[in-house]
Amino acid sequence: MAHLTTSVEYALHGLLWLVDSDVALSTREIAEVQGISPSFLAKIFPRLEKAGIVSASEGVRGGYRLARAADQISFLDVVNAVEGDKPLFDCQEVRGRCALFGGNPPPWAISGTCAIHAVMIQAEKAMRDVLATQTLAAVSQRFSRKIPATYMADLREWFGDRHDRRTSRIGRPRREGPS
Amino acid sequence: MAHLTTSVEYALHGLLWLVDSDVALSTREIAEVQGISPSFLAKIFPRLEKAGIVSASEGVRGGYRLARAADQISFLDVVNAVEGDKPLFDCQEVRGRCALFGGNPPPWAISGTCAIHAVMIQAEKAMRDVLATQTLAAVSQRFSRKIPATYMADLREWFGDRHDRRTSRIGRPRREGPS
Repeated sequence: MAHLTTSVEYALHGLLWLVDSDVALSTREIAEVQGISPSFLAKIFPRLEKAGIVSASEGVRGGYRLARAADQISFLDVVNAVEGDKPLFDCQEVRGRCALFGGNPPPWAISGTCAIHAVMIQAEKAMRDVLATQTLAAVSQRFSRKIPATYMADLREWFGDRHDRRTSRIGRPRREGPS
Repeated sequence: MAHLTTSVEYALHGLLWLVDSDVALSTREIAEVQGISPSFLAKIFPRLEKAGIVSASEGVRGGYRLARAADQISFLDVVNAVEGDKPLFDCQEVRGRCALFGGNPPPWAISGTCAIHAVMIQAEKAMRDVLATQTLAAVSQRFSRKIPATYMADLREWFGDRHDRRTSRIGRPRREGPS
């Protein structure tokens, strides 16, 4: 399994739909327009909400919005929200297991950070530094540059249609949530 | 599971025993002195041999040696040898699945590298660049600085004892391999 999983991929693609959206979108709408699993996405967005990346509202117009400006949401924020504190390398302190220590390693052998682990921490930091410099806004702009006007019109129609369907459910007691 | 697994950790700790060794060491000896699983290590070293990091010899003095100078073996060499081409992020080309494409995404939507994937490639490169700059020799020196002379003497005795046991197996037809 790759270190940055499908959950991160779905979260990022999902969030990009919110960058320029004037209305709140449900995870069902996002999943449908993006062609990904609605149930999978519905499990990811609560993590993004908990991390303060999106905010949720209920009701017929309910759904998710970005909780702050897209240029204030980095890839690292999203990775941390979705994956938690998953280290690149999980040091097992092998250095202290030398047969000569007989299960009781001396302080000189286990003080400070293991030299191998230190390299891995440095490598992980370099990776995270890149993720910290990239924002949803910047990547959204890169996507937008390629999009033709006709597609934008089709999209507005698609979301308008969904929105109409939602708000015309008069008399139906079922509460519409963010998912 | 961490991206850089226990196999990488064992490979690096195992290889460090070869940096200053005058004799070939079997994976059994390395595993025993390091307090790690011999059978696990025996599966890892053939990958290091295949990648040209170690060379194997057979016979009573058989075992593994570094195949080139320790300052010419980077952490990235070891990670690649052990893990293969495991990407940090496995792009599934989600961008082409938009519902409006009806399963037939237009060229503008899927040309070039996905902007999300591009960020992940950049992050992975930053991680690999750090791993490429760190060598077995440099990390071995960092370990060596902390080691007291008494421990080095104990180690020489431990390996000498193992060596004597190996070479005194006169009349035993079993061939000693690198593992």
